[in-house]
Amino acid sequence: MNKHYETIVVGAGVIGSSIAYHLAKRGHSVLLLERGTIACKASSAAAGMLGAQSELKEGDDSLFQLAKASRAMFPALSQELKQYSGIDIGLQQKGIYKIAANEGEREELLAYGEAQRNLGEEARWIEPEELQRKEPAVSSQLSGALFLPNDGQVSAPDLSKAFALSAVELGAEIFEYTDVRGLIKEGQQVTGVKTNRGDFDADHVVVACGAWSEDLLGKQDSVLDMYPVKGECFSVKTRRRLIQGTLFSKGCYIVPKAGGRLVIGATEKPGTFEETVTVGGLFPLIKEATQIVPELALAEWETAWTGLRPQTEAAIPCLGPHPEYSGLFIASGHYRNGILLSPITGKVIADLIEGKQVPHEWITTGNFSHRGVNL
Amino acid sequence: MNKHYETIVVGAGVIGSSIAYHLAKRGHSVLLLERGTIACKASSAAAGMLGAQSELKEGDDSLFQLAKASRAMFPALSQELKQYSGIDIGLQQKGIYKIAANEGEREELLAYGEAQRNLGEEARWIEPEELQRKEPAVSSQLSGALFLPNDGQVSAPDLSKAFALSAVELGAEIFEYTDVRGLIKEGQQVTGVKTNRGDFDADHVVVACGAWSEDLLGKQDSVLDMYPVKGECFSVKTRRRLIQGTLFSKGCYIVPKAGGRLVIGATEKPGTFEETVTVGGLFPLIKEATQIVPELALAEWETAWTGLRPQTEAAIPCLGPHPEYSGLFIASGHYRNGILLSPITGKVIADLIEGKQVPHEWITTGNFSHRGVNL
Amino acid sequence: MNKHYETIVVGAGVIGSSIAYHLAKRGHSVLLLERGTIACKASSAAAGMLGAQSELKEGDDSLFQLAKASRAMFPALSQELKQYSGIDIGLQQKGIYKIAANEGEREELLAYGEAQRNLGEEARWIEPEELQRKEPAVSSQLSGALFLPNDGQVSAPDLSKAFALSAVELGAEIFEYTDVRGLIKEGQQVTGVKTNRGDFDADHVVVACGAWSEDLLGKQDSVLDMYPVKGECFSVKTRRRLIQGTLFSKGCYIVPKAGGRLVIGATEKPGTFEETVTVGGLFPLIKEATQIVPELALAEWETAWTGLRPQTEAAIPCLGPHPEYSGLFIASGHYRNGILLSPITGKVIADLIEGKQVPHEWITTGNFSHRGVNL
Amino acid sequence: MNKHYETIVVGAGVIGSSIAYHLAKRGHSVLLLERGTIACKASSAAAGMLGAQSELKEGDDSLFQLAKASRAMFPALSQELKQYSGIDIGLQQKGIYKIAANEGEREELLAYGEAQRNLGEEARWIEPEELQRKEPAVSSQLSGALFLPNDGQVSAPDLSKAFALSAVELGAEIFEYTDVRGLIKEGQQVTGVKTNRGDFDADHVVVACGAWSEDLLGKQDSVLDMYPVKGECFSVKTRRRLIQGTLFSKGCYIVPKAGGRLVIGATEKPGTFEETVTVGGLFPLIKEATQIVPELALAEWETAWTGLRPQTEAAIPCLGPHPEYSGLFIASGHYRNGILLSPITGKVIADLIEGKQVPHEWITTGNFSHRGVNL
Repeated sequence: MNKHYETIVVGAGVIGSSIAYHLAKRGHSVLLLERGTIACKASSAAAGMLGAQSELKEGDDSLFQLAKASRAMFPALSQELKQYSGIDIGLQQKGIYKIAANEGEREELLAYGEAQRNLGEEARWIEPEELQRKEPAVSSQLSGALFLPNDGQVSAPDLSKAFALSAVELGAEIFEYTDVRGLIKEGQQVTGVKTNRGDFDADHVVVACGAWSEDLLGKQDSVLDMYPVKGECFSVKTRRRLIQGTLFSKGCYIVPKAGGRLVIGATEKPGTFEETVTVGGLFPLIKEATQIVPELALAEWETAWTGLRPQTEAAIPCLGPHPEYSGLFIASGHYRNGILLSPITGKVIADLIEGKQVPHEWITTGNFSHRGVNL
Repeated sequence: MNKHYETIVVGAGVIGSSIAYHLAKRGHSVLLLERGTIACKASSAAAGMLGAQSELKEGDDSLFQLAKASRAMFPALSQELKQYSGIDIGLQQKGIYKIAANEGEREELLAYGEAQRNLGEEARWIEPEELQRKEPAVSSQLSGALFLPNDGQVSAPDLSKAFALSAVELGAEIFEYTDVRGLIKEGQQVTGVKTNRGDFDADHVVVACGAWSEDLLGKQDSVLDMYPVKGECFSVKTRRRLIQGTLFSKGCYIVPKAGGRLVIGATEKPGTFEETVTVGGLFPLIKEATQIVPELALAEWETAWTGLRPQTEAAIPCLGPHPEYSGLFIASGHYRNGILLSPITGKVIADLIEGKQVPHEWITTGNFSHRGVNL
Repeated sequence: MNKHYETIVVGAGVIGSSIAYHLAKRGHSVLLLERGTIACKASSAAAGMLGAQSELKEGDDSLFQLAKASRAMFPALSQELKQYSGIDIGLQQKGIYKIAANEGEREELLAYGEAQRNLGEEARWIEPEELQRKEPAVSSQLSGALFLPNDGQVSAPDLSKAFALSAVELGAEIFEYTDVRGLIKEGQQVTGVKTNRGDFDADHVVVACGAWSEDLLGKQDSVLDMYPVKGECFSVKTRRRLIQGTLFSKGCYIVPKAGGRLVIGATEKPGTFEETVTVGGLFPLIKEATQIVPELALAEWETAWTGLRPQTEAAIPCLGPHPEYSGLFIASGHYRNGILLSPITGKVIADLIEGKQVPHEWITTGNFSHRGVNL
Repeated sequence: MNKHYETIVVGAGVIGSSIAYHLAKRGHSVLLLERGTIACKASSAAAGMLGAQSELKEGDDSLFQLAKASRAMFPALSQELKQYSGIDIGLQQKGIYKIAANEGEREELLAYGEAQRNLGEEARWIEPEELQRKEPAVSSQLSGALFLPNDGQVSAPDLSKAFALSAVELGAEIFEYTDVRGLIKEGQQVTGVKTNRGDFDADHVVVACGAWSEDLLGKQDSVLDMYPVKGECFSVKTRRRLIQGTLFSKGCYIVPKAGGRLVIGATEKPGTFEETVTVGGLFPLIKEATQIVPELALAEWETAWTGLRPQTEAAIPCLGPHPEYSGLFIASGHYRNGILLSPITGKVIADLIEGKQVPHEWITTGNFSHRGVNL
């Protein structure tokens, strides 16, 4: 007889690890399965922005609520994860500047700030002179910036690892190098998973495989409407902190990390599973970043990398119970917002598994077509 | 309509790359598909011994013939691959010493040498004193060695890469980061593959995925009788060449590479897909190696790694046409001898695809049970 | 005219960086010069134990007071450095266990604990059964342990970098890749340094070059009584925290870091500047560590490294003003206790430079012979 | 008594290692001393071009003869070094193209080719159409190229290591991590060196420390007229060989290595010992390289690095006996041509030490002022 768990979570990225953490904390028996190693793909590649206001567009109403709820969870989470895993997630709450490179962008951002304030959110316009005072390393040629003081950032690899290892401290099991090859079903009920280290039974199975969720859900003839969007990033080191807040322009973002590191990202290349950094991908990032912070030209090159963000055709995360199979949950498609949304995603899936009430508009699996979320 | 190839080879390890190389050289249109990158798994982990005589046991008659035929191909291959790819495969033809640590092993090896000579092979017994003269760094406490002058070694990562890149120079296409999710079939005819970058059609499909061959062949309910055997290795550096030939004992082997590097291997851990080096795996290797070559204790630690060797229950490679599906070929299960057998495997599969005659005893797919090589 | 600083600190290891930090915090103009990069040598190699009670032997009276004073500075320092540099120094205050492997060691440690308590220090004897309860991963074959609850540990590379970058945030300048080739003197007054990027003037020069201090102080014909003691270490990873406290035996120490890492050290090889890890160095560490924590055999090998600890013939740090030259200070020779002693060393040197009172027994430069601390 | 050698060579870069190789091959007792590890600085950073004709300007008459003589040594050397060390130095003799980006450069290069032919050298003008045929990946927007078929390239790190390890095979000793702190003199005779591992005596001492030669020769108050010129490079990988020959433009060079690697270099930043790659250094290299070979934009980013080339004020290598001290030789200041000139430099210094005749115009130490080559 196979070993039985209350819940099996497939994928130890930031989403799967958060789900395992929330479940383990509530005393559930949890098995976290991972093809590679903890956070070995997109979760470690992310720049870690908590851009509830800076990333999400108008009209993303329920997604915006989800994002705000998630952002609010970070301060307490930072304490908890440090306690369980010893890992500091590098939370910085110093705001994000949306940069206006020209008059057109200035008009757009002024309007965006107005709209945010009408929603009750903080968003303050910063004129170029004030920007120079607050962030002297930023180019004096910009047309101002919209400052979102409540957006922030974390260290994405540390957050992901902290979730997973805290889950283990709380009793979850984790098997790495474990390839889930298929779901075990009894009629319309999912009852476990087949893997390269044998079968495992569970009351609930959560698919949290990011861009690879299709491998498991869309096997054989169907096509899940999920696809990878490759992002290329690079990092530099300085000995003096160049900027305090995160800078976010149309062409790139610049995220200041602890110890003088800066992460600059990211390209958007949909539809490829290639994980190579290309010369042609780096070039415009370097160009744009050094235009925003000219002193970056003197910074020390550290390294470059890629991540494959999971995007859906509907451009919303796929979150909730599978529309046809009971016992099966999906938590994927977080695109550029996986780090930001990981705390709330963990909580929502744990609530669903416990049968608790969850705001119905956050559950999106029903929005996906039969063809889109097939087994 | 999908792009069509004469042959699609799945897996760009040393076996798949050799097959692609042989086919491309003969003018075939070839597509080489790889989930990761060229030789990213076992093929780069191998120590590169060409141990036709040192690795194979009595009774492995046809396998021994295959191994000898393959070993004989290396000198010419070394020239060719250098010409096409610029890569030096590091061929060293300085023999392998099978080390006798005690009287019991001495008796065994004396008998083994006798048997080899009866087969017409070179195999010379070396008394401890002569061993000290030929290889002064070897411990004086040993009970002699059987010297197999025709065994040798190559750089396994370089050989693998040289095969793949030479294939490309000769017109083959290669797609990395391409996960083959299934075979396309029309009745009993395999006509192509489904991948994460779309479908591709081919007259012939070769499965050369090593320990992961089961992923493709054994999908769903059947179980291929292939399993991984993890091997842990480490390497050291010295500034002066410690040994000329390769040393092969019951507990480890020590392979001298160009530039003073030595590769020491390898543990045998069947049934796991974990790719971690363990402390407990390294310990007996270090102990044994420093007993054979005491001066290794002063050598500089370089690094440690693992590889997953593909083994079959029958303990022979699985080579030839699939017993049930036409257009489908298998070349896997080479266990510890993938590097050694790669040239002949490439030639045999290319011959089979071209409808040429191949010694029937080298074709083993018929030996595998229905259950063993199911689709 | 050369640029002038109040103080030039030579060496951006943990000692030099702490000195620069303390001076910068007090508003001094400081230049920190480093031949390589911040903490590129021993400071990043250290395991980070704060072993005031576990490392220092009876009779080290003043050194023990220095160590205790330094240990007490860490909690506040941890907050400060995080604020200035964003870096979490990984302070863990979970005690150190001095392990008794046999009855002889048990007797020694019981006596040592008694002596510590007589000095007013906390030191509690732990019988094997209790040890098993508190640290279940520890071998049941041990003869107990002396628990020193007030000893702890930090991440040595993070502490060093946090000191240096906090100093920069507070106004210090740092030049890396800067080789100090000599001191500039006017009679018996040191007035600056010659470097590969020109000369710099200062009121005070502090030599904090660890094992390389001799390069600067002992140039030409004299020999400073300082020498390097090479230590080899390795690290492993586990997914579950194996131990809470640090384990300290006669043959090795095992220090649990954040996120399931463990650092195991260290050999003692005096008199060599070689920075290579040897196979023969690792072997007894692995053996001893897996005897103390058997489950370490299953842990994942991460990496191995070395550091060169600066030791003096007198076996005490060399701390204070140079006995012959005014304007010149020495802070070196901290041997295995550089991380532990870095806060108090920074404070003491800053106090001396400001002309403040410092406990006279902490100032050791007078103890070094003319020949020992020659220019 | 100190151990005595016929010759001590200080610096195990490509120059020092070649000298040690030539001396050891002739049966001399040689000690090679190195502060770090073999070829740890500029020699491993070099792109490895053998640009006798492409690098040297008109008027460099004797340097040009030296370069040609050195270039001619590579084919035999390649065989020898492979035999002694097992290392393949990656010699490629496929010519260098000096690229004309516009009409002005075309005129210059046409004249340069004419001049080369007048000197009896091969140099062929390639019109854009032919360039496209020979090197289809090269931009069609160029104004042609001057092809120098006898220039070529090697793998610089492999050449350096092959020299050093071949020297060891031939009997030389090498001590790494050995800092030479000063010369031992008796009157005007240099008789050995002081190091951090003790003193060593020798009949001859050769200083071959590249950009760090000043450390040894120019100690104390004098200033050798040698300075570092930092060069930043990066490398990319392709799966198909993009170019056959090396491309050399005003702004960068592109050197195709074995296995689809390409090395692109190099910036020129005089007077700094910093070894950091800067973002602003990479940017123009990427820009220029992708203009010459547009497909490079799709190539995979591998890594970036720097090297410090040793340049002299006179802009010629400093080669020969020290003008004032007997027993002391200098071989440094090779600037961008250290790899190319390493064989002949090794031969010339070995000849001088053996008292053989050497073309007087190759000996340049006399050209350096007293102040320039002071001890």
